Amino acid sequence: MAKQIKIFDTTLRDGEQVPGCKLNHRQKLVVAKQLEVLGVDVLEAGFPVSSPGDFSAVEMISKELRNTIVCALSRSVENDIKIAAESLKYAKYPRIHTGIGTSPDHIKYKFNSSPDKIIDRARAAVKYAKSFVEDVEFYAEDAGRTDNEYLAKVIQVAVDEGATVLNIPDTTGYCMPDEYGAKIKYLVENVRGIHKCDISAHCHNDLGMATANSIAAVLGGATQIECTINGIGERAGNTALEEVVMILTHRYKDIFETNIKTPMLNPLSRLVSESMSMPVQANKAIVGDNAFAHSSGIHQDGVIKHRANYEIIDPREVGVDQSKIVLTARSGRAALAYRSKNIGFDLSKDELDIVYQKFITVADQQAEITDTDLNLILRSIFKKVI
Amino acid sequence: MAKQIKIFDTTLRDGEQVPGCKLNHRQKLVVAKQLEVLGVDVLEAGFPVSSPGDFSAVEMISKELRNTIVCALSRSVENDIKIAAESLKYAKYPRIHTGIGTSPDHIKYKFNSSPDKIIDRARAAVKYAKSFVEDVEFYAEDAGRTDNEYLAKVIQVAVDEGATVLNIPDTTGYCMPDEYGAKIKYLVENVRGIHKCDISAHCHNDLGMATANSIAAVLGGATQIECTINGIGERAGNTALEEVVMILTHRYKDIFETNIKTPMLNPLSRLVSESMSMPVQANKAIVGDNAFAHSSGIHQDGVIKHRANYEIIDPREVGVDQSKIVLTARSGRAALAYRSKNIGFDLSKDELDIVYQKFITVADQQAEITDTDLNLILRSIFKKVI
Repeated sequence: MAKQIKIFDTTLRDGEQVPGCKLNHRQKLVVAKQLEVLGVDVLEAGFPVSSPGDFSAVEMISKELRNTIVCALSRSVENDIKIAAESLKYAKYPRIHTGIGTSPDHIKYKFNSSPDKIIDRARAAVKYAKSFVEDVEFYAEDAGRTDNEYLAKVIQVAVDEGATVLNIPDTTGYCMPDEYGAKIKYLVENVRGIHKCDISAHCHNDLGMATANSIAAVLGGATQIECTINGIGERAGNTALEEVVMILTHRYKDIFETNIKTPMLNPLSRLVSESMSMPVQANKAIVGDNAFAHSSGIHQDGVIKHRANYEIIDPREVGVDQSKIVLTARSGRAALAYRSKNIGFDLSKDELDIVYQKFITVADQQAEITDTDLNLILRSIFKKVI
Repeated sequence: MAKQIKIFDTTLRDGEQVPGCKLNHRQKLVVAKQLEVLGVDVLEAGFPVSSPGDFSAVEMISKELRNTIVCALSRSVENDIKIAAESLKYAKYPRIHTGIGTSPDHIKYKFNSSPDKIIDRARAAVKYAKSFVEDVEFYAEDAGRTDNEYLAKVIQVAVDEGATVLNIPDTTGYCMPDEYGAKIKYLVENVRGIHKCDISAHCHNDLGMATANSIAAVLGGATQIECTINGIGERAGNTALEEVVMILTHRYKDIFETNIKTPMLNPLSRLVSESMSMPVQANKAIVGDNAFAHSSGIHQDGVIKHRANYEIIDPREVGVDQSKIVLTARSGRAALAYRSKNIGFDLSKDELDIVYQKFITVADQQAEITDTDLNLILRSIFKKVI
């Protein structure tokens, strides 16, 4: 039986805190409800102490969602935790997310503290959060740059205090997959009682490794991935939900599974992109406009003969109607015949040769040949026939 | 001494063949010259047989570049190879790139052929290409989905015929890093005479793994990475040059090195994005607008105290002037004090408390607080003083 990997969505917290991404309450609610339909297991709704607006957004989402764990962020500060608990008052499944920086840089330059004092603060934070809710997730910020032995000590304290989920963030996007996977494995092997808890991968994409690191974490024993739609988030963003889900679905089919309804991935990508005014680049994996578009002649010929020659995912699985065969100067006869047939011209081999010569001359002058352009080319050649 | 990893740029071939990305000759030349200054070792300039425009672009670039290998693509077809050789006539360092699909899907559905016949075609293609130029790169298309044992046989033939570079493309973006790294390692260990050749990683990003796979390949023994500026390319694109270069520079500092002048990465990203009309998403690693922007209060406080708390790369290393501290409703007192000071208001702790209350009310209503907004807030509070 495949192992269930939980999807923790932080589009409305780590995603929404990005410059320009702010949503109003109505927009947040629309996204939250769609994320629940998508099937995320946990939805991080905000950081309530940061502003009154964020507090009321978390409260509003808590009232609405009935199947999904609603999570609120806090620092290891009593007031943060108390306010997070208040904002979750109406949640059916509330979770407080609390924690503290554990890397040498964070301990020295952010907290001007010592490793032992950080452990004390971690213990106190989990203990205090547990006084409000059963489900407490602990994060060791900048765990990616934290020595494994010390990290295990911090995590041990969180486990001992009853944390239900242990988040091991690579906050600065520093880790390579082998390092990050080994870090998770080290914790699994060295923290007593860790098997009662979920272990969570929270990765950032500063070096383009967020997806690879999240998968490495799951292979190392993590049971939850924190991610956002379109990979939005602070700096270069978080792990892209659509990428990790499709990797688990396609490449680890009988080993791992998630609750995500994949045909919603593209519509939800558009909703988030449009409501946050955060365009997704055309060459974005899974949800980019070109993700299933083919333009070079070699590829088009291959895809027309047999889709799997150049596509490993059927676009309908992720909510895209069909693969696109785009006509450009790089296109060959196969694509030209295919697109001509689509608009009613079934060309013989000789006719195709004639049309191709004209087509390539026009295509060398412009970015793309549309159906209208193609129609004009075809009609100019076959004007006597039609 | 660090091992040199060659950077093979295919922005003007695999990148430019994308829907809408077509450049005119003048634009191509500008990009090609900048790529030479950036320090790429090889520049793939086009696929000459595909159109007269592509032929003349390769010819033009061949005339201009004096330090960089200029490469032209071809299929395992005599006419392709002959035309590629003609287009490279004026190149100081010409390279023909030729090859054939080797996966079961490609052999059966694309070529309607057999594994043995494919090997014959590979042999003939390399041999014919070698009759024109010394430097011949062989690609085994869809190597990512090709059985390693058969792949080694194909590659052996290319080595025996004198190929100088062996390209192992993950054409469909199918591989996971451990698989792809192991594939390269298998070839290193099982192909006789492979050590005389460069081994090249050519990855696609359909599952978000192109960067991770390229690094895994280098760790497995590859000596060249094929990539594009901004990761543009067919479907979800190719490996992003800026990501692999910064990983090698930062995370494998004494192990690997490249010739890339990293402060050109951001300017060149903009040039390619603008001339191809391919916007880069804000949360793109290294070159996105937000790659060095900080907006949440926790992060801003951390970065103001000590840059390395939340940044692993100094933005100046990649041609960005400085980190951005963006004021939003998620910002805290540290960022507010920092930005206020920047525009001339050095606030005491008590003053900061007053300004913060007003700031957070305004910030809850809008996406971002600009210097102008902040100035208005500050003046409304301190109007008697100023």
